[in-house]
Amino acid sequence: MNNLNTTEAQRIFSAAPFTRDLGIRLESVAPGECHTSLLLTERHLQQDGFVHAGVQATLADTTAGAAGATLIEPGQYVLSAEFKINLLRPATGSQLTCTAKVLKAGSTLTVVESEVFCGSAEASRLVSKATVTLAIVKPRS
Amino acid sequence: MNNLNTTEAQRIFSAAPFTRDLGIRLESVAPGECHTSLLLTERHLQQDGFVHAGVQATLADTTAGAAGATLIEPGQYVLSAEFKINLLRPATGSQLTCTAKVLKAGSTLTVVESEVFCGSAEASRLVSKATVTLAIVKPRS
Amino acid sequence: MNNLNTTEAQRIFSAAPFTRDLGIRLESVAPGECHTSLLLTERHLQQDGFVHAGVQATLADTTAGAAGATLIEPGQYVLSAEFKINLLRPATGSQLTCTAKVLKAGSTLTVVESEVFCGSAEASRLVSKATVTLAIVKPRS
Amino acid sequence: MNNLNTTEAQRIFSAAPFTRDLGIRLESVAPGECHTSLLLTERHLQQDGFVHAGVQATLADTTAGAAGATLIEPGQYVLSAEFKINLLRPATGSQLTCTAKVLKAGSTLTVVESEVFCGSAEASRLVSKATVTLAIVKPRS
Repeated sequence: MNNLNTTEAQRIFSAAPFTRDLGIRLESVAPGECHTSLLLTERHLQQDGFVHAGVQATLADTTAGAAGATLIEPGQYVLSAEFKINLLRPATGSQLTCTAKVLKAGSTLTVVESEVFCGSAEASRLVSKATVTLAIVKPRS
Repeated sequence: MNNLNTTEAQRIFSAAPFTRDLGIRLESVAPGECHTSLLLTERHLQQDGFVHAGVQATLADTTAGAAGATLIEPGQYVLSAEFKINLLRPATGSQLTCTAKVLKAGSTLTVVESEVFCGSAEASRLVSKATVTLAIVKPRS
Repeated sequence: MNNLNTTEAQRIFSAAPFTRDLGIRLESVAPGECHTSLLLTERHLQQDGFVHAGVQATLADTTAGAAGATLIEPGQYVLSAEFKINLLRPATGSQLTCTAKVLKAGSTLTVVESEVFCGSAEASRLVSKATVTLAIVKPRS
Repeated sequence: MNNLNTTEAQRIFSAAPFTRDLGIRLESVAPGECHTSLLLTERHLQQDGFVHAGVQATLADTTAGAAGATLIEPGQYVLSAEFKINLLRPATGSQLTCTAKVLKAGSTLTVVESEVFCGSAEASRLVSKATVTLAIVKPRS
């Protein structure tokens, strides 16, 4: 992994107001892979006390974007073209963690899978899984 | 539309911390339909200045949930089972609005479509479209 | 709509063995839009006598591809990058019809929605709806 | 895995005209898992000589249904509620194989992932991946 691409993956977290605002933390990044976490507070919940699907979707999408960004050329960036997320069970706990892995990297489209886990630092389980299609945006010369 | 179901649709906004925290406003609700809005600030953006996909997904999911909730029986509630969202163009502007309409209401599953528009109070355009599958959760006796 | 693009939309039906094999018929094509039909026989069914989801998916995908192909440049062609289909109710009847409309045409990605109806020549109802992302493949020079 | 559930998984192949018509073969079934194959002929192709997305979708959907059917109660059956498939690369070769694994089994909804591989008996690669939501239909008393 070259420095520039790590930089782009990190920029998704450091330079994105919404990601920072939610409290999403970049845990680690490797070629085609990214790990993140989010300490849950009451603001992340929906009306029945579960973690809002929108929070899970944001974490899945952002982590996928960073995983895909590790494999692009310098000067390129990624935009989510579409994603689908299955909410597998109601999510309750003190933290979310997310692992995103590139399923297929391409020159114009990259497909990434994100798994979101919910629980405590000691034990967690899979609460949602997303498939994210990223558009690779070419440098504008 | 009976009072209880309007109440459940409204509860999705009034009782959901994440929805309130983001600033999502319920504009109107009708049988099988819901309209919402969100005044954009810097915190809703991603790293390139566009509205974060997670914000659009949250708005689409929440508005779909409320649209579906208008058609359920008293005591039931809805949970998002899965959704897919296509981000059609980079979203920039001062506000998002969302219209959700039930495509098929069922006794266990309801499918809703949400369209998200971005722009100003005067002019906006479609920036994303989502299809949301809601699970209808039966009263626990 | 220029002749070449109509040609490409028509080629999807005339030159695709699987589309012909299933019995899919092109009914009409217009800029950003395509209508098809399929007379149902026993071979199109699944184990409980309903139209197989794969038949509906094939019709939705193919019709979307043709709708998208009407808007591309001469020499380009389309490939399905991904699609999602909701099967809204068990499908029974003597024919399927499908209407596909472009939601957003782009230079590299086009998003199309397909609605599949099932019933008779006199009456039918919506049985599935798909959202299809097409990759626009550039001429190879 | 009890006999009845294996029976239901097998019935999806033996009793479904479309599955038989396409030439899909059940290779093996285990609790929450199913493996299938399809020998490709010209009829399975689209207009540019690649395996039609509809063929891949049918294989992914059917194999997912059988994987999910292994975990249901006697008398129940499964219906696809929705699925999403990503076509990762153009598919060419002499055969398709598919592996479906249950991601989350539930009493009303089961989520299954299907991976479709294309190539020869010696070498193949992942050409598409689907996520399928199955509705568990209760015995009608």
